[in-house]
Amino acid sequence: MKVGLKEIQAAQANLSRILVPTPLLHNPWLSKELGCEIYLKLETAQPIGSFKIRGATHAILSLSDTEKKKGVVAASAGNHAQGVAWGSRQAGVQATIVMPKNAPLMKIQNTRALGAEVVLAGDNYDEAYLEAQAICKKTGSVYIHAFQDANVIAGQGTVGLEIFEQLPSVDVVVASIGGGGLVAGIAVTMKALKPSVKVYGAQAAGAASMQKSFEKKKAVTLDGVSTFADGIAVSKASEELREILQPKVEKVLSTDDENIAAAILMLLEKAKVVTEGAAAVSLAVLDQIRSEIKGKHVVVVLGGGNIDVNVLGRIIDRGLIRAGRRLRINCWVADRPGSLAKLTDTIAKGGANILQAIHDRSEPSTSIDQTEVALTLETKGPDHSAELIRALKGAVIRLEQVD
Amino acid sequence: MKVGLKEIQAAQANLSRILVPTPLLHNPWLSKELGCEIYLKLETAQPIGSFKIRGATHAILSLSDTEKKKGVVAASAGNHAQGVAWGSRQAGVQATIVMPKNAPLMKIQNTRALGAEVVLAGDNYDEAYLEAQAICKKTGSVYIHAFQDANVIAGQGTVGLEIFEQLPSVDVVVASIGGGGLVAGIAVTMKALKPSVKVYGAQAAGAASMQKSFEKKKAVTLDGVSTFADGIAVSKASEELREILQPKVEKVLSTDDENIAAAILMLLEKAKVVTEGAAAVSLAVLDQIRSEIKGKHVVVVLGGGNIDVNVLGRIIDRGLIRAGRRLRINCWVADRPGSLAKLTDTIAKGGANILQAIHDRSEPSTSIDQTEVALTLETKGPDHSAELIRALKGAVIRLEQVD
Repeated sequence: MKVGLKEIQAAQANLSRILVPTPLLHNPWLSKELGCEIYLKLETAQPIGSFKIRGATHAILSLSDTEKKKGVVAASAGNHAQGVAWGSRQAGVQATIVMPKNAPLMKIQNTRALGAEVVLAGDNYDEAYLEAQAICKKTGSVYIHAFQDANVIAGQGTVGLEIFEQLPSVDVVVASIGGGGLVAGIAVTMKALKPSVKVYGAQAAGAASMQKSFEKKKAVTLDGVSTFADGIAVSKASEELREILQPKVEKVLSTDDENIAAAILMLLEKAKVVTEGAAAVSLAVLDQIRSEIKGKHVVVVLGGGNIDVNVLGRIIDRGLIRAGRRLRINCWVADRPGSLAKLTDTIAKGGANILQAIHDRSEPSTSIDQTEVALTLETKGPDHSAELIRALKGAVIRLEQVD
Repeated sequence: MKVGLKEIQAAQANLSRILVPTPLLHNPWLSKELGCEIYLKLETAQPIGSFKIRGATHAILSLSDTEKKKGVVAASAGNHAQGVAWGSRQAGVQATIVMPKNAPLMKIQNTRALGAEVVLAGDNYDEAYLEAQAICKKTGSVYIHAFQDANVIAGQGTVGLEIFEQLPSVDVVVASIGGGGLVAGIAVTMKALKPSVKVYGAQAAGAASMQKSFEKKKAVTLDGVSTFADGIAVSKASEELREILQPKVEKVLSTDDENIAAAILMLLEKAKVVTEGAAAVSLAVLDQIRSEIKGKHVVVVLGGGNIDVNVLGRIIDRGLIRAGRRLRINCWVADRPGSLAKLTDTIAKGGANILQAIHDRSEPSTSIDQTEVALTLETKGPDHSAELIRALKGAVIRLEQVD
């Protein structure tokens, strides 16, 4: 598997007919926060909301006419599935995507909407992969691997070319590693065009297969993966990818889901952009290399924005609690008319919103003449929360903060 | 107040030294949905997350040296405040922003973080405005109006110039109207460069002051405004702006908060971009002009992304309920050990997540041998919800869907 600058430039020429470069945006707020100049590369702006469109489309466009006639197959329930479906439609090629039987309905629908046939097989990715191989054997179709494929890596590498064209002064690029195709493509580009650029890989702590492989200088397979960043939840590192990456990548960093979720919220608020965990992880790891990036021009590749909106809602809720903007308290008030009114009046005067109030007179643990009220309040921040607690202490018998 | 193409081109030359053009992105999903080619103009990508940076900065840069020395004043608790603060810092000018005393803490902090002095005065915008005028009188500072100012309109008009440069084939532009500065600037540009382009204004139904002014051909003042889209909650239309707008604007459309919220959710999911109500309204009104825009190249200006994340969380929650992806039900089960286990087991087998379960044995309205469980479930969509309800009906005595 050989990928050099020439192959990546060829991929760019190939893709430029159907894809436009994604924006690279300077973010003043994150720059100030991190003590460097932060530029966000918005792969979220791709037609399928992810960089995976590049590699898959280039690989399909690169097939011979005979291969194109036989169609392509991929096993994926994620962004690669949509990338292959989108690229196939552009190339007029039939695509079959194999997904595990428990794949989310929405991913099945999105992939079908792009014109691919979706086959449900097996209980996990490995079983779906075997079925995909069986289909290829039977039909002679070409299997499009998500990262272990020179054309796919060359396609992802066009992210690096665009970064260099958009910001020649780039010093540092950070992008996430699932299989490693994106960072491989970017690192090859940077080392060829501007070897002084430092490229970092980012992984979820619960799926740090490439980070561990770097340590052992040999591809490892994790016993299991545990992260909500499904786009980079890869347990088995590829030795071929490790061999490309290790000489060119400064470091692979990892961070936990809590930090990834905080980065998603930060990008929502400060960059007005929706990212999935597999993208926001690239921002989340920056805290670990503050001294290395100080004052530099740092490009954070936001690989995709395909996050379930239910998950996004939960991330917002948790983030607000962590940021001191949701206050959860239990209050005990006298069990007589007017007590609850006094409590809610204090909250209103304090300028907070009541999100939830559970007033449970049957709760047996409280004293006979008291009643408990569990409250979730929306506040302006930690100072406002503290102020409210002070005011409420004067209005209730006892108060306990939850969390 | 005279604003022509020449003034807008001068504003672009002025601003191009410190602001980069914002992205214009084609969105395939929205295009398919609306039967035309939708391009999103991302003013959310501005350093302050809103187009208001353009007009305010151009107005401040255009001041004489004597005026600059005396500083500028504005009354606003919104994006204009941050625009004036940002532009003042760029120009080395002292800015004083007057906000009503009840202004959200975050807006005060954001404006101060940009280096402006924030004065809290009055209980509403009108009172803050009077205080701002008093400060100008006392200090000789220049008042920077949010829309009734030729330089401000010229600055906002640069949005139109960029659209024309980025998409010469543009047929339709839709942007929101609060005071009307943005649409005025865009309409002047379009009518000068490509008169065939149709420009539409969008307003919240609860603050449709310019729409009503168009009807009466005379600026009106509404008795009150009611919309969560605070960026366009303007009750008093400006006759000067109406005179600029009415000959050049096809129509002013309005829609209710429910539709604006749905558009915010759609932009989150399908364009991966965070918008405030005052921006998403431009997408929300498109349904009303489907036949006019069919097959056309339609630019939707997303003016800003400064939405409180608490509000965003609520919009997601409500959107999921409306989309059939949150299911709220009350169930009655036998009041004996194992009943609740059977219920939760049925939900687990049905592939839904329990977001909230309230099991209240003290609720007196139920029959003596039954107990009520109120559930909020996360489902994959309406079909999945219906399937779950069928399965649950076999597991409980009675079931009621809420909403």
